[in-house]
Amino acid sequence: MVRERIRLSSLHDRIMSADQAASLIQDGMTVGMSGFTRAGDAKAVPLALIARGKAEPLHINLLTGASLGNDLDGMLADAGMLKRRLPFQADARLRAAINRGEVMFIDQHLSEMVEQLRSGALGHLDCAVIEATAITETGAIVPTTSVGNSASFAILAERVIVEINLAQPAELEGLHDIYIPKRRPAREPIELTKASDRVGTPAIQIDPAKIAAIVVTNQPDSATTLQAPDADTSAISRHLITFLEREVLAGRLPRHLPPLQAGIGAIANAVLSGLKDSPFTDLELYSEVLQDSAFELFEAGKLAFASASSIVLTAPMMAKVMPAIANYRDRVILRPQEVSNHPEVVRRLGLIAINTAIECDIYGNVNSTHVNGTHMMNGIGGSGDFARNAQLSVFVTKSLAKDGRISSIVPMVTHVDHTEHDVDVIVTERGLADLRGLAPRERARAIMENCLHPSYRDQMADYVRRAVARGGQTPHILEEAFSWHTRARETGSMLAAPAQEALSA
Amino acid sequence: MVRERIRLSSLHDRIMSADQAASLIQDGMTVGMSGFTRAGDAKAVPLALIARGKAEPLHINLLTGASLGNDLDGMLADAGMLKRRLPFQADARLRAAINRGEVMFIDQHLSEMVEQLRSGALGHLDCAVIEATAITETGAIVPTTSVGNSASFAILAERVIVEINLAQPAELEGLHDIYIPKRRPAREPIELTKASDRVGTPAIQIDPAKIAAIVVTNQPDSATTLQAPDADTSAISRHLITFLEREVLAGRLPRHLPPLQAGIGAIANAVLSGLKDSPFTDLELYSEVLQDSAFELFEAGKLAFASASSIVLTAPMMAKVMPAIANYRDRVILRPQEVSNHPEVVRRLGLIAINTAIECDIYGNVNSTHVNGTHMMNGIGGSGDFARNAQLSVFVTKSLAKDGRISSIVPMVTHVDHTEHDVDVIVTERGLADLRGLAPRERARAIMENCLHPSYRDQMADYVRRAVARGGQTPHILEEAFSWHTRARETGSMLAAPAQEALSA
Ligand SMILES: CC(C)(COP(=O)(O)OP(=O)(O)OC[C@H]1O[C@@H](n2cnc3c(N)ncnc32)[C@H](O)[C@@H]1OP(=O)(O)O)[C@@H](O)C(=O)NCCC(=O)NCCS
Ligand SMILES: CC(C)(COP(=O)(O)OP(=O)(O)OC[C@H]1O[C@@H](n2cnc3c(N)ncnc32)[C@H](O)[C@@H]1OP(=O)(O)O)[C@@H](O)C(=O)NCCC(=O)NCCS
Repeated sequence: MVRERIRLSSLHDRIMSADQAASLIQDGMTVGMSGFTRAGDAKAVPLALIARGKAEPLHINLLTGASLGNDLDGMLADAGMLKRRLPFQADARLRAAINRGEVMFIDQHLSEMVEQLRSGALGHLDCAVIEATAITETGAIVPTTSVGNSASFAILAERVIVEINLAQPAELEGLHDIYIPKRRPAREPIELTKASDRVGTPAIQIDPAKIAAIVVTNQPDSATTLQAPDADTSAISRHLITFLEREVLAGRLPRHLPPLQAGIGAIANAVLSGLKDSPFTDLELYSEVLQDSAFELFEAGKLAFASASSIVLTAPMMAKVMPAIANYRDRVILRPQEVSNHPEVVRRLGLIAINTAIECDIYGNVNSTHVNGTHMMNGIGGSGDFARNAQLSVFVTKSLAKDGRISSIVPMVTHVDHTEHDVDVIVTERGLADLRGLAPRERARAIMENCLHPSYRDQMADYVRRAVARGGQTPHILEEAFSWHTRARETGSMLAAPAQEALSA
Repeated sequence: MVRERIRLSSLHDRIMSADQAASLIQDGMTVGMSGFTRAGDAKAVPLALIARGKAEPLHINLLTGASLGNDLDGMLADAGMLKRRLPFQADARLRAAINRGEVMFIDQHLSEMVEQLRSGALGHLDCAVIEATAITETGAIVPTTSVGNSASFAILAERVIVEINLAQPAELEGLHDIYIPKRRPAREPIELTKASDRVGTPAIQIDPAKIAAIVVTNQPDSATTLQAPDADTSAISRHLITFLEREVLAGRLPRHLPPLQAGIGAIANAVLSGLKDSPFTDLELYSEVLQDSAFELFEAGKLAFASASSIVLTAPMMAKVMPAIANYRDRVILRPQEVSNHPEVVRRLGLIAINTAIECDIYGNVNSTHVNGTHMMNGIGGSGDFARNAQLSVFVTKSLAKDGRISSIVPMVTHVDHTEHDVDVIVTERGLADLRGLAPRERARAIMENCLHPSYRDQMADYVRRAVARGGQTPHILEEAFSWHTRARETGSMLAAPAQEALSA
């Protein structure tokens, strides 16, 4: 079994224990690990490292595709082993360590980190730890459920540790398309004009001599959990689908829609799920992550093709999809995140990008990352890669958070990840605001009328009225712009005093 | 002379007066005009329109490449004729009308407006008014000193008015490279891998039947004025060049540097000028606008090639360059702004993008457009196209504005055009902060130590200390984040009270 998965026999003598492999990683090193939104993370070497980190000083700079699964980010944070973490995470304990200032977290566009690594701006990559389905006859590494930055890590690292995971179906081989842009000035166009185009090779070819260790594991990806669609997320989905139908009718979008990208999380998943009951057919995804919704759309016969960088599923969906993964080989491609999120391809294909906001302001600026402008949630992930270059950049959010004590539509966002220039449409369960071709004062009206929750309408109207009296392209009252946020800190709610009283009366 | 410039003789009967041509434009129409940072604007038809607008109700939606010259934006604003203006302007009177809320100004990425126009999201384009050097035998329009959006306007408009400007040298013909991306899903890669590559045609080919009027003019572009480099802008230039030299030495940049983009205005011009005295040779520009500095670099033998969308010069430089423009035909290309600024090409070529900030904050967010977060200066222009997709995104600004009463480095910018994710380097006359690979708390230190003016050091250190005590990835005190701005409004200066007293003592 193992030997079938390591087809270059000269590598068989590199098989060793996770502890032995982990000993290649020294204090102070920069390490690149596979793993993207839980999928395809290395499972044994990180654990061995954490065990060592409890016994001896061991601090690393950790680069990944995106967030790790199996509680790894949390355990690494608890062990105090992370000096620097990039480009994304989604773990409560790591988040807390970041917000205490203990871990230097560099929150970066997912397509971009590898450019900086390649150019040397992030220093030397000492070691890569890559989960693989197999190693081919030529020593090429076949990834598992994500590609992420694994290919570039393997290429750029001084030494490579491969984890062959027997629990990942051998049939994953053939799903991947590994294309890595050449170094400039030899960089060429990415000749990808359809979501289903293959432009690379099925595995990551490096000099096999760089493979310093092979560890055999047998453990599935950690499944994700997804809140079931609720009335609000279903309403968001409905508003967006109605809008897309109108755009098609008006001739502004093609009948089968351009390829779709959808962000992580419950809302984005619900929006995609909603397409099952829409009139649209022959849809394509050109996205970063395939969640359950992608496979529901396949089942419903709605989806013709899906391209992404990782597959992250709930346990029931994983149990269904993974054993049958061979059936998806002509309908799914997994690519390096540099390609799945590449500005060139995103713009060329004219994606509809659907991402989730923490908060939006009335002028169309979006905060995806920082609660109260200070505390990191997860990171920008790929949302900027897509929003900035898509044909139609949509942000979704519930109009309220924390049982109505927080409005997700605010006078001014406390942190900007997506500027007014990059946000075309905002959708809440209340409705949809189409901001294209609107000046800021018009955007404010559209967002207030369509997206804002009624319980915040009066206080927003009051703010805008007084702001407009002061003039400007984008009217604001600077000394009050964050007053909703400071009020929530002081009183527990963004609601103005009279509304709070009315509520408790 | 005129007949030589209109080589398709069947069009000769379309020659008419500006008043006659302008009568094709009716109240309420959407009009696309040539013109980009003063260069190549239509000169007679807009004046005829303005004259009519004084006598009868005449309001238009005006789309251009970027800002117009010849005081046109100001006169149109004064005449109250602009309902909607996009995507950029740089005129004091239009700016005032925008900030009063009289003109709906849609401030857009320069590469992107035309995508929205093409898809129908900006409505129907009734008429295009394009300045031309000539019309060819096949009826193709040869632009003058800018291409901007002229090609797409001519293609998309129902009717086209051409102004043949005899004052523009006939030798401009051959300088342009007109490539317009196909409609999706037929969109293909832009096969441009060097600044000097030609991928299109020398003129804008449309059905000649659409050319409804031809007006003959004889008036040069309005020259620009540029503040001479001063001690501060020279220092900015020196810091940046020293940094680039170090990057080359460290092997992170190639010896001749990647192609450079530089924004508009005095500082960006001074930075480029400074390269004359640098060790760099065989430089290339892949930029949006060529200012005087580009031609100084040609003269100094430093510049091998320059690609842009427009040429805007001071009067003395114009007098030198324009008569000799034929000599530049193998060293200069003018492209549609969709191509000069295209994310695909910007990322592929790995540009060094140098743009000017109004203010930056200590975490590396940049405001390029809104004074005090409310009042529009010019617009984002192409800075977002470049900053988001460049290899190295540099923002320059003097550390002080308004004689030191304003610090251009603030705790939090009042408007974000370029997020922390898109800003690699900040340079003031004090020094340079390299933000790559730094977490926000580290960025704050780098910017405070290298870029902030010493007169603001104490009050910034105090803010940061208290903000850090509250925690977070990006520490802030929301109720004080804009206190420098509100203090400036109240006291005339951002300086804290003690510093103001010390100053006046
Ligand atoms: C924005 C984002 C955090 C939303 O996540 P989600 O799971 O879809 O949405 P939820 O509504 O469950 O919100 C997550 C948390 O934020 C909180 N939240 C939401 N809006 C809030 C607001 N305006 N203020 C404060 N907290 C808010 C929720 O209450 C919830 O908190 P909890 O974890 O304590 O319950 C998530 O989509 C994200 O990290 N996006 C950035 C990266 C990205 O877009 N990637 C996509 C490209 S693949
Ligand atoms: C940012 C920008 C306005 C700077 O212009 P500039 O001519 O190089 O710089 P200046 O220092 O002369 O500043 C212009 C004005 O802004 C004012 N200003 C500068 N910093 C300021 C600040 N922090 N707060 C308030 N005003 C400020 C200056 O005092 C000056 O005012 P004045 O016209 O009343 O004298 C200009 O570069 C711009 O519009 N950029 C956005 C578009 C862009 O980047 N295009 C480039 C892609 S081609």
